[in-house]
Amino acid sequence: MSNAKALPLLQPGEVEPCCPPLAERPLTADEAERTAKMFKALGDPVRLRLFSAVASHEGGEACVCDISDVGVSQPTVSHHLKKLKEAGLLSSERRGTWVYYRVEPAVLAAMGQLLTKAAAA
Amino acid sequence: MSNAKALPLLQPGEVEPCCPPLAERPLTADEAERTAKMFKALGDPVRLRLFSAVASHEGGEACVCDISDVGVSQPTVSHHLKKLKEAGLLSSERRGTWVYYRVEPAVLAAMGQLLTKAAAA
Repeated sequence: MSNAKALPLLQPGEVEPCCPPLAERPLTADEAERTAKMFKALGDPVRLRLFSAVASHEGGEACVCDISDVGVSQPTVSHHLKKLKEAGLLSSERRGTWVYYRVEPAVLAAMGQLLTKAAAA
Repeated sequence: MSNAKALPLLQPGEVEPCCPPLAERPLTADEAERTAKMFKALGDPVRLRLFSAVASHEGGEACVCDISDVGVSQPTVSHHLKKLKEAGLLSSERRGTWVYYRVEPAVLAAMGQLLTKAAAA
């Protein structure tokens, strides 16, 4: 079931250049809208655990079949991984029966910079 | 670990040491719960704009009286600033009539590290 609606899905290429460090100047409404989506995706404990499970998995990638210890059903895992992908935080590739997810380093690094530079300012 | 569970509010001192970089190992349920709260606080566009307004304000601090251009009422601004404080991202100090908020650099830096190191892994 696809409940992705008409939400503007963020692609890594779009996300990366967005937005100055949070302490440089106030974000515009548009910048805040885009950036908040990424933080929101990590603002759920189950999603954060899944994200961490993918990021720390051997080879930096994982499929639903690799992740079974966060206490939620496989369809729920799939649902959350898709949300993380829609936020631009994971990329995916189908191989045979399974979709493999991996972390988008550029997007993460950009988010990290927003915070780290805000902290230093 | 600490028995902070009676109270969902995170204090800067508690937040900072929490959690390895997201790519180091899967987060535990408890770690994810604590860290997700911080990301969630920044996962709302209005809150993110307010946070950025405080972070970029002269002297790195601001009161509600300084922030009027994000298109929401003063009580709403106050509400969101309190949420950010509860998440450990802002600290506050009352001076006369106004409460002044400032960014918690250690907490932000820790969040930035979680992401930046995950990106580099």
